[in-house]
Amino acid sequence: MRIGVVAPSTRLLPETAERVRAIAAEHHPEVDIHFHPQCFLSHNHFAGEDKVRAEAFVEIANDPGYDALWFARGGYGSCRIAEAVIARLGPAARDKSYLGYSDAGFLLSGLYRAGFAGLAHGPMPQDARRPGGEAAVRRALDWLIRRASDALEPGLGAEPNAAFNITVLSHLLGTTLEPPLEGHVLLLEDVSEHLYRTDRAMFHVAASPSVRRVAGIRLGRLSEVPENDPDFGESGEEMVRFWCERAAIPFLGQADIGHDSANRIVPYGAA
Amino acid sequence: MRIGVVAPSTRLLPETAERVRAIAAEHHPEVDIHFHPQCFLSHNHFAGEDKVRAEAFVEIANDPGYDALWFARGGYGSCRIAEAVIARLGPAARDKSYLGYSDAGFLLSGLYRAGFAGLAHGPMPQDARRPGGEAAVRRALDWLIRRASDALEPGLGAEPNAAFNITVLSHLLGTTLEPPLEGHVLLLEDVSEHLYRTDRAMFHVAASPSVRRVAGIRLGRLSEVPENDPDFGESGEEMVRFWCERAAIPFLGQADIGHDSANRIVPYGAA
Repeated sequence: MRIGVVAPSTRLLPETAERVRAIAAEHHPEVDIHFHPQCFLSHNHFAGEDKVRAEAFVEIANDPGYDALWFARGGYGSCRIAEAVIARLGPAARDKSYLGYSDAGFLLSGLYRAGFAGLAHGPMPQDARRPGGEAAVRRALDWLIRRASDALEPGLGAEPNAAFNITVLSHLLGTTLEPPLEGHVLLLEDVSEHLYRTDRAMFHVAASPSVRRVAGIRLGRLSEVPENDPDFGESGEEMVRFWCERAAIPFLGQADIGHDSANRIVPYGAA
Repeated sequence: MRIGVVAPSTRLLPETAERVRAIAAEHHPEVDIHFHPQCFLSHNHFAGEDKVRAEAFVEIANDPGYDALWFARGGYGSCRIAEAVIARLGPAARDKSYLGYSDAGFLLSGLYRAGFAGLAHGPMPQDARRPGGEAAVRRALDWLIRRASDALEPGLGAEPNAAFNITVLSHLLGTTLEPPLEGHVLLLEDVSEHLYRTDRAMFHVAASPSVRRVAGIRLGRLSEVPENDPDFGESGEEMVRFWCERAAIPFLGQADIGHDSANRIVPYGAA
């Protein structure tokens, strides 16, 4: 079992990779995790220039020697390379698992649209830095290595699923990365956004013809929400229920996903 | 000449209305500015509940006794009422000027799509609070009262124009408020957004099929930009040029608009 880690967004620190290697060595000594050197590059906001990040992604994805491509972390930057990357992927890229969330959603979405199987929303190496992060890394490896059912978000049913950061989903609707969502249960989460911003993003998301065809929406955690001035006066769940009701989208309750170490895994498509 | 002021987003303070009345009394004693009482209401983030804000907007817009509807200020909230408001507007609403920017862009966009003339992107009463704000208020009144040509953005040419806050435009693309932009020069500005956020919004905007049919993009000011960590490494203009080039949209230079008292007026449609 070989896992290749690339960073299409923001760079990883070498000590974070060391921490992940140590967790893997203890719990999954059979796995070989290769952190592509690109993960540690730095160019402005990004883990290397667009071309360099794209090249690393394509190299790992197209290499049949890797069983999985693991997104190093979120941040920002994958939308800048997603279309170019996906256009270059060959057959070996389709025979592989992909795991990430947050900004990685741009690429996961485009890959899902391109018909890739084996995609999932879940923890990344950067999560090793969180309190309780070891559990997140183990959960990710449990899923990547043996599709452990206890790593999955516990409410996944018979319908196909898709999970997104609300801000990321809002920014890819209408682009060539927009995922096919008809009949899906859509699990949403966000981090570090004022509630008025999430409300605005939900206006946009709930107005999308594509989103209006989902089977329903489940809400994960909205975490590290900056103080709204004045107080927003509604909880995140009340807000999402409001937009679901306006768009006649069933609200299906909470989901165990978010920017934290409890973040459970949501495979794209049928569970 | 009667101007009605409503606040479809965030509330206005009474002293700001007083300041605007004083500026108008000195320079335009012929104008009657009515601040609808709704402007001063407060409900959570908003200048009154959705229904109350919508009602005030419809009341002024549909009243043939008003020559213009002036948006009190930006903030957040007009997207929540825009569709319901526009569906209720009658003939008197079409025979009227509308002036605002920032969050007001949701309503201006929907009105433009509905075929309204007399729409413009420009200063609002709240701008009286800015340094040099008196000039902004006078400019707005000069345009509302006598269509003063020196109030206009100086680079407007023969093509139709439209002006938007980048974040607002990104959030209305794909919704029923999306404006017809084919052949337009699109003037953009933003405030208080990290450069990585503006870059992400420009990915979304430049990917929109509607935006890809514009005659070109001109960039106004990106102001009060919070520090990017790490440094973004590109100026706002370099960033917008990058996205224009990727989308084969002509970049037509700078524009004299922004969240400041120098903000010049851009009528929607042919100048």
